[in-house]
Amino acid sequence: MVIEPLAGGVTAPRGFQAAGVASGIKSSGLDLALVVSDGSAAAAGVFTTSLAAAAPVILSRRHLQASGGRARGLVINSGCANACTGDAGMAVAQLMTDEGARVIGCATEEVLVASTGVIGVALDPDTVRAGITAASTVIARDAHAAAARAIMTTDPGPKECAVRVRTSAGSFAVGGMAKGAGMIEPNMATMLGFVTTDAQVPPAALHRALVEAVDETFNAITVDGECSTNDAVIALANGESGTVINEGDERDHAALVEGLRTVCHELALGIVRGGEGATKLIAVRVVGAATLADARRTARAIANSLLVKTAVHGGDPNWGRLVAVAGRAGTPFDLGRAVVRIGSTVLFADGRPYDDRSPEAARHLQGDSVELEVDVGQGGTAAATVWTCDLSAEYVRINAEYRT
Amino acid sequence: MVIEPLAGGVTAPRGFQAAGVASGIKSSGLDLALVVSDGSAAAAGVFTTSLAAAAPVILSRRHLQASGGRARGLVINSGCANACTGDAGMAVAQLMTDEGARVIGCATEEVLVASTGVIGVALDPDTVRAGITAASTVIARDAHAAAARAIMTTDPGPKECAVRVRTSAGSFAVGGMAKGAGMIEPNMATMLGFVTTDAQVPPAALHRALVEAVDETFNAITVDGECSTNDAVIALANGESGTVINEGDERDHAALVEGLRTVCHELALGIVRGGEGATKLIAVRVVGAATLADARRTARAIANSLLVKTAVHGGDPNWGRLVAVAGRAGTPFDLGRAVVRIGSTVLFADGRPYDDRSPEAARHLQGDSVELEVDVGQGGTAAATVWTCDLSAEYVRINAEYRT
Repeated sequence: MVIEPLAGGVTAPRGFQAAGVASGIKSSGLDLALVVSDGSAAAAGVFTTSLAAAAPVILSRRHLQASGGRARGLVINSGCANACTGDAGMAVAQLMTDEGARVIGCATEEVLVASTGVIGVALDPDTVRAGITAASTVIARDAHAAAARAIMTTDPGPKECAVRVRTSAGSFAVGGMAKGAGMIEPNMATMLGFVTTDAQVPPAALHRALVEAVDETFNAITVDGECSTNDAVIALANGESGTVINEGDERDHAALVEGLRTVCHELALGIVRGGEGATKLIAVRVVGAATLADARRTARAIANSLLVKTAVHGGDPNWGRLVAVAGRAGTPFDLGRAVVRIGSTVLFADGRPYDDRSPEAARHLQGDSVELEVDVGQGGTAAATVWTCDLSAEYVRINAEYRT
Repeated sequence: MVIEPLAGGVTAPRGFQAAGVASGIKSSGLDLALVVSDGSAAAAGVFTTSLAAAAPVILSRRHLQASGGRARGLVINSGCANACTGDAGMAVAQLMTDEGARVIGCATEEVLVASTGVIGVALDPDTVRAGITAASTVIARDAHAAAARAIMTTDPGPKECAVRVRTSAGSFAVGGMAKGAGMIEPNMATMLGFVTTDAQVPPAALHRALVEAVDETFNAITVDGECSTNDAVIALANGESGTVINEGDERDHAALVEGLRTVCHELALGIVRGGEGATKLIAVRVVGAATLADARRTARAIANSLLVKTAVHGGDPNWGRLVAVAGRAGTPFDLGRAVVRIGSTVLFADGRPYDDRSPEAARHLQGDSVELEVDVGQGGTAAATVWTCDLSAEYVRINAEYRT
């Protein structure tokens, strides 16, 4: 299996078109996107675990069920989450799929919907209807970049990625776009991500591959420990490449997972790099754990620690904060056998600090990509990585002023 | 039972003396405190649950065990946590109790020790020895304020409190001091707190009362969701008031708990008010839960949410973030029956927002004491309050620059 980078984002795979328009949901800028498959596509979704799930999440889940995992298109808006909006909000979500179906020429159940923005604000039906009509007039093979921009909220830039996967069975493309800068937590889908592929795969197999790919990508990032009401990652597979992913063939399955994972990984890291106020990407790796669950839990605790995130922001090789979080993470930890690395520099081992190496670690923290590693001293082989960003005063400014 | 405020902090109860001196552990300022009971006192402690517990925590636990819950005094230093310092750190903690015992004239096991400050830095034995000797020469009934200052790190000011409890069985005093501004989480003792009383009570009964009092005070606050390597709350009861708390007498027990709780509550709120970068005290109340555990978990999730804390900082009545956190807290939540209040203003109920009331809620957020309430819609009677503070750019500045 070979994976090659590809241009074209969400429309890189054959038979997909996209559009991004300014409909007026936001006071300015692109705010409504369409992604359409020329023919019927297998569809799978991973959604927020929140009990306050937004109307578009509830409706998309329902449509995936009703269509048996088939879809023709996605309608996505930014600027308004359509969450906590009651019956009126559900009616607007329904309208978005009705209008999407009208312009695509398919059944309502074949349209999925996603929204992102402020919670509890009504989404105006007339604005959305006009926006979908406008988008349908500009939909094109090369409009992926506009679509990627139209789904942004506080994101500093669009996040797109595409690859070609070559296997012995043939080749297929995977493309994607994502948004997310705040309310990011590794507890679930955690932001909006849309992945397209021209591989041919049944809905159930697509779902299984998507869950696997999301687990180590979108679910392994955190900006601020929050899980949103609107999180969704949706995949569409229209089969236009002619390359068939046979259900039950583990090599085919692995190729599909690898394609999805590569795209999701890039998009997920893009979200963290563009985290609200972020200046550094931080990879938190926990090794030496007895179980994968322990390794992940410890890595997440470290990645969500304000003291760790602010220390990295300040360029302070404060390994003590890493030990402190690992010690209170609720997972087995042996201080006498623990090892803490910042970059490749061991700062704590054999139960004692090596502070003379601090300058070396401080140099590593000057970069914009930081690696922290904690061996929790259980002698196990389980390891996990969680990606996060540093916490800056800018994060506070953005979130204290978001609605004003 | 009547509870009256009292002056005198940790030396308000009869038969206690204190001292605070500048020993040179910090580059400037008071950094070493003694608290001494004239006679033998019942002693109880609640310590960090961290698996990376610091040397003083390990040693104090051991001494409480060895002495059968009796103590004469406390030695406390700030400026250095003596955590992750290996065998050398344990030797210094041992030295602190040896020196404390020497100046008090008691057994080593009758001295408890606590440290706070930077993790992983060695505590110089000669500095500490000289400091304890110096403190022993200035120890006095009226030196409580110096002791309260000597245990501070990034605290904006000292935290002291004392009360007199009058019951039918007689009266007794409870005094206390605390430090803590960062690394504060409700997962355990979570900071340093020292409580004295002249009530006469056996060690086991004192421990039971302390655990009860801490549960709804020090364990119900959070600044940044961190639990430290050094957290400890220690209580001493020397019986000098002559008022006897009979074990098994529920009225006596309740009076002791109430005295301890009143002092711990004031100290705990003082910690939150003085949280790193804090400008507002936030009381997060969750009601309508089926169980106390659910109510506490949801309240803690809200209190630790960066998005909630930054919204309050910005004076933004963003009830949507409260709903979002309650929905993802991992506890039962019914969006259709949930009610969100900011101050006394209902902003969300019946599954929909009441945004016309936002100005009223925004006015409440202008104050320095903010109340947030979420009814999670389970129709239960369980409720819990967790206190926290807002998150400001100043928090980031303090924690990005702490060691530099």
